[in-house]
Amino acid sequence: MSKPLTDQEKRKQISVRGLAGVENVADLKTNFNRHLHFTLVKDRNVATKRDYYFALANTVRDYLVGRWIRTQQHYYEKDPKRVYYLSLEFYMGRTLQNTMVNLALENACDEATYQLGLDMEELQDIEEDAGLGNGGLGRLAACFLDSMASLGLAAYGYGIRYEFGIFNQKIVSGWQVEEADDWLRYGNPWEKARPEYMRPVHFYGRVEHTADGVKWVDTQVVLALPYDTPVPGYRNNIVNTMRLWSAKAPCDFNLKDFNVGGYIQAVLDRNLAENISRVLYPNDNFFEGKELRLKQEYFVVAATLQDIIRRFKASKFGSTEFVRLDLSTLPEKVAIQLNDTHPAMAIPELMRILVDLEKLSWEESWDIVVHTCAYTNHTVLPEALERWPVDLFQNLLPRHLDIIYEINRRHLERIAKLYPGDLDRLRRMSLIEEGDVKKINMAHLCIVGSHAVNGVARIHSEIIKNTVFKDFYEVDPQKFQNKTNGITPRRWLVMCNPGLAEVIAERIGEDYIRDLDQLKKLLDFVDDDAFIRDVAKVKQENKMKFAAYLEEHYKVKINPNSMFDVHVKRIHEYKRQLLNCLHIITLYNRIKKEPNKSWTPRTIMIGGKAAPGYHTAKMIIKLITSIGDIVNNDPVVGDRLKVIFLENYRVTLAEKVIPASDLSEQISTAGTEASGTGNMKFMLNGALTIGTMDGANCGNGGGSWRGEPLHLWHEGG
Amino acid sequence: MSKPLTDQEKRKQISVRGLAGVENVADLKTNFNRHLHFTLVKDRNVATKRDYYFALANTVRDYLVGRWIRTQQHYYEKDPKRVYYLSLEFYMGRTLQNTMVNLALENACDEATYQLGLDMEELQDIEEDAGLGNGGLGRLAACFLDSMASLGLAAYGYGIRYEFGIFNQKIVSGWQVEEADDWLRYGNPWEKARPEYMRPVHFYGRVEHTADGVKWVDTQVVLALPYDTPVPGYRNNIVNTMRLWSAKAPCDFNLKDFNVGGYIQAVLDRNLAENISRVLYPNDNFFEGKELRLKQEYFVVAATLQDIIRRFKASKFGSTEFVRLDLSTLPEKVAIQLNDTHPAMAIPELMRILVDLEKLSWEESWDIVVHTCAYTNHTVLPEALERWPVDLFQNLLPRHLDIIYEINRRHLERIAKLYPGDLDRLRRMSLIEEGDVKKINMAHLCIVGSHAVNGVARIHSEIIKNTVFKDFYEVDPQKFQNKTNGITPRRWLVMCNPGLAEVIAERIGEDYIRDLDQLKKLLDFVDDDAFIRDVAKVKQENKMKFAAYLEEHYKVKINPNSMFDVHVKRIHEYKRQLLNCLHIITLYNRIKKEPNKSWTPRTIMIGGKAAPGYHTAKMIIKLITSIGDIVNNDPVVGDRLKVIFLENYRVTLAEKVIPASDLSEQISTAGTEASGTGNMKFMLNGALTIGTMDGANCGNGGGSWRGEPLHLWHEGG
Repeated sequence: MSKPLTDQEKRKQISVRGLAGVENVADLKTNFNRHLHFTLVKDRNVATKRDYYFALANTVRDYLVGRWIRTQQHYYEKDPKRVYYLSLEFYMGRTLQNTMVNLALENACDEATYQLGLDMEELQDIEEDAGLGNGGLGRLAACFLDSMASLGLAAYGYGIRYEFGIFNQKIVSGWQVEEADDWLRYGNPWEKARPEYMRPVHFYGRVEHTADGVKWVDTQVVLALPYDTPVPGYRNNIVNTMRLWSAKAPCDFNLKDFNVGGYIQAVLDRNLAENISRVLYPNDNFFEGKELRLKQEYFVVAATLQDIIRRFKASKFGSTEFVRLDLSTLPEKVAIQLNDTHPAMAIPELMRILVDLEKLSWEESWDIVVHTCAYTNHTVLPEALERWPVDLFQNLLPRHLDIIYEINRRHLERIAKLYPGDLDRLRRMSLIEEGDVKKINMAHLCIVGSHAVNGVARIHSEIIKNTVFKDFYEVDPQKFQNKTNGITPRRWLVMCNPGLAEVIAERIGEDYIRDLDQLKKLLDFVDDDAFIRDVAKVKQENKMKFAAYLEEHYKVKINPNSMFDVHVKRIHEYKRQLLNCLHIITLYNRIKKEPNKSWTPRTIMIGGKAAPGYHTAKMIIKLITSIGDIVNNDPVVGDRLKVIFLENYRVTLAEKVIPASDLSEQISTAGTEASGTGNMKFMLNGALTIGTMDGANCGNGGGSWRGEPLHLWHEGG
Repeated sequence: MSKPLTDQEKRKQISVRGLAGVENVADLKTNFNRHLHFTLVKDRNVATKRDYYFALANTVRDYLVGRWIRTQQHYYEKDPKRVYYLSLEFYMGRTLQNTMVNLALENACDEATYQLGLDMEELQDIEEDAGLGNGGLGRLAACFLDSMASLGLAAYGYGIRYEFGIFNQKIVSGWQVEEADDWLRYGNPWEKARPEYMRPVHFYGRVEHTADGVKWVDTQVVLALPYDTPVPGYRNNIVNTMRLWSAKAPCDFNLKDFNVGGYIQAVLDRNLAENISRVLYPNDNFFEGKELRLKQEYFVVAATLQDIIRRFKASKFGSTEFVRLDLSTLPEKVAIQLNDTHPAMAIPELMRILVDLEKLSWEESWDIVVHTCAYTNHTVLPEALERWPVDLFQNLLPRHLDIIYEINRRHLERIAKLYPGDLDRLRRMSLIEEGDVKKINMAHLCIVGSHAVNGVARIHSEIIKNTVFKDFYEVDPQKFQNKTNGITPRRWLVMCNPGLAEVIAERIGEDYIRDLDQLKKLLDFVDDDAFIRDVAKVKQENKMKFAAYLEEHYKVKINPNSMFDVHVKRIHEYKRQLLNCLHIITLYNRIKKEPNKSWTPRTIMIGGKAAPGYHTAKMIIKLITSIGDIVNNDPVVGDRLKVIFLENYRVTLAEKVIPASDLSEQISTAGTEASGTGNMKFMLNGALTIGTMDGANCGNGGGSWRGEPLHLWHEGG
């Protein structure tokens, strides 16, 4: 039997992955050496692997620059409608390989680094993940950016450049221990600071009613410094922009009135302002009502809206003398998509800009806002819904509180007219929840302020209409939609599972890489033995590779011929890792009871991070590792059942484990889990997808493509 | 009369300032455009002036890289003795023009930018000063780096990369207002982070006495991340390194034992560790005994000594099996120069390394330390001398306190033997000062731990021997030396006063630029009318230019035909700006008394920063601006007397005002002011230098060159 092909070699067989032409390779080598010398200030005697990674990253980045500039110029010239995707999370993972794939440069880079005596895969592994997300919500944002660029949409991702992304998880004596994710320590070759587009963001202060309208005065200013990251489309010469804001204290921060001797403290206190972009809140599906988080949410919104309005006004379309008239056309040129309620402040902030600054009437402004904004709901878990105490708002954003009250007054006036005397309905639908602590219901604000509201899986979108937002659906049914979460097949298939991509391409060509509907053509092959065999072969190779990875990096030896039963996602009660534990214990007990029966060997891998403050989730991790200690060391069981906790699950580890998975555990409770993001990644990689216990969440929730799970395993016992 | 030449044109007349050859210019243009596109990600449509500055800076920087790498390789091959200049301040100012001058690239860059339609001088003005110093002490360090590189010495500057240098001074209603110096906001093209050379620095903890020797345990670790800046010599292809350390919290900082929910706070608390390199203490000649400052001092010392020892051990000379033997040769290969007592901790830290880590005997270690270290004293002002409370040390650096006590015990044992029964002498010479608060006298530590101690002006060095350190001089007279402060004539003559440089070069050639002794040859011209006329002409042109600068930037109109009477330095009582004020008032009263007499018109310019906590100094600024308000608005006085406060005096402003000065006020009290740095800059620029009131500090304090002040003005009145 000949040696199996490496992933690089497999990718070379897909011609569209870039030709390693002599010219390309020679250019790449020249540019690599130039960057090593001039950018890294190193020679081959003293360069480290990290220097080589940076030389390669800078070399590849150079190929984006011309396309990036031309794309943005093109948008300026054509002035298409812009899509602004506002999100507190962009869970991007690594960028180098994705860029090479989308620019068809991978084979040439591989050849160039090989000729330079370097191992490209080893260099790629040096890149830090951009871990600016918790899970599905953040990864959805990242996948959308890739897809919008690949579709040639004039789209922008707007978020926060967290100095520290999601923590790194270490497992110490079976317990989760968190480490700060200092991902920028070595510099980030994929971002370009744009200090010339710095924007002021205001906090605190008070509202003044003047003859010239309402003014928000005596505020504290924090500057928003943008960092741009290129987002290349797949082989289409489009490069869009993800702009992430970093908080900077102004030069006079705290210095105006400090006391004698307080100078040093004033400079140190700049941290208080700059803490806004310091760290991602590590909660998934949980609302933690901290002031710093509210600052983050307003910070990204305020900076982004200034950018949007500036760009609108500077556009050929918008730059006439009559700004007042112009702004009424905003919805024709601008779509603002709110990724969950986190950027909900865009609604009152845009009202503030239009009413207070642009002096439009309330009615005209509200019309613009509603037609510009759209809202994606991600969860119906009550503990995840944002409900901000009014007192916090009163202090931090007093003008916005006024505006929200006015939005609510008009909203309730309308409801009262529709349902005269139905006071309970008014209470249920109010943006303000009464009680011991008065709170603002941000989801209600988003529904009222948007023209479109979507859930992220068919069942989820139905639940929204029928339960949590039923009252709103009744008055505005046309707003409610479904957009089942999808993923980008570039990263999740071509990039991380080239073997499977090739097997598919051999049958139906390569167009499916930009048009997943074409995967339907695979239906012709579901009973094709050669196809099934090829898929199984790819899967087995992926499993061997992942087993080798686990052995090298975690010193864990697993049986590559066992079924890989994989449960990877955030640790959360609703995701039911506990149910999986009970299943493991059941399997263990069965084997112990009938040790001589023929059992399908199974390696159960569970991975995911627990929010640092989520005690139960951390106990579940300890339970999993403890079960592993028992099961893995029982000589009666042998290698028929192994339980591995996958430390530090993240985008990069997902790219490794998903292509190697036989069985993907999607057993979350219904409606709270978007079916798409998790399951589609797995289905594309040929894993068996099993439904939730109640059968509600089986991964084909109404998206454009309904994959048929490939049943390669039959459970023993 | 023909139009006077611009500075650029003047510099072109000095051939050694670089030939604008066609090839050079074409290369520069290509590289400039490449950087604008690939590094700045801009095209000419949207590029800002700042983008052009960065493109030019990167282009010029590229010319340093090869020389930098080759210089360091050369040092490795030859293994010469290394000079380590340890300083808490490096007051570098700008780098672009200095680099062009030293690399003979200025004319070519000027031509290239001109051909690109840009004004090089305008771009240069965008560069932020590296304001990592307060005054003379920090500027001396910067000048030494230039001179050591120009002399081809294997020298290194080691300091702190303050995120905020000396504050920017605004004058608001006559008062000083401070603004944070956010000099890194737009990025620094002259530094290269070197994360691969990160070093841990320990604080706090406790001392454990074990069988295996003394251990410093349970410490808190802060990482020192080095940033390297190239230091090019003048036209000699040498590029040395200034390495500045930045504080980074380790990834597990504060995270090991945090409570549930404390994760966010733990990440924010990283600031506490990283505050170490946040801001330069803005005191000049004043000791403020704050813990954060002590942390800074130990931080630079601990990181630097690890680097020094590593480099020594990795050298061809040092890398044998017998490290123990090797370290005894340290003084043959390493000189550590302490710029004032700020890095005094190098003495106990090197002892700790040798005794605790390298397991050498105390005696052998001490011998190495004393022969390696040398100490520069900058001041005898009592309030400027560092005297750290023992309690602070006990907490922050307990092992070093032990070591200092042992150094003191042996030191006093020796003194007691030399002067039996002289208890008062023991008290005076002790490193530990008894009293209400026990303190460590850092100057005493430096004298005892060094083989050489120098003052920075002849009179200053004499005062040291005769007064403050008399006791130490008596027991170790051979240690005491003088090194009068000098300046680099590259920056302070060729770069900022090309007209004068040219006038001198016409008489004595250009070799004086690297060998200032040659200025003696000018003695032949002191009575040469043409020479005097040329010097006067240059001065007049410089004055016109500075007057235009003041008018453009400060909206102040001055009479360029008046005498420019300039008093620029930190505001401090001992520098006697008050005396100058009295002089102004006297002149004012004289004019008022005899308004019809013929008075020499005089523009008095006073500039300098006051430490933010130095109340009297801030009042002096207000006094100066208030005097200006009276004098400048008195119609009787007219333009015969004007008083201008030069806002935000710094290296870059010095480069502008010094060449335009007729009279340089050096009226500080004796012995506390180093004569050289201030006066030599002025003398090189042809200003009249007047002595101090007591005549002691007249600027020719024993350096290698004794300039003759050029008496161009005779005072009226």
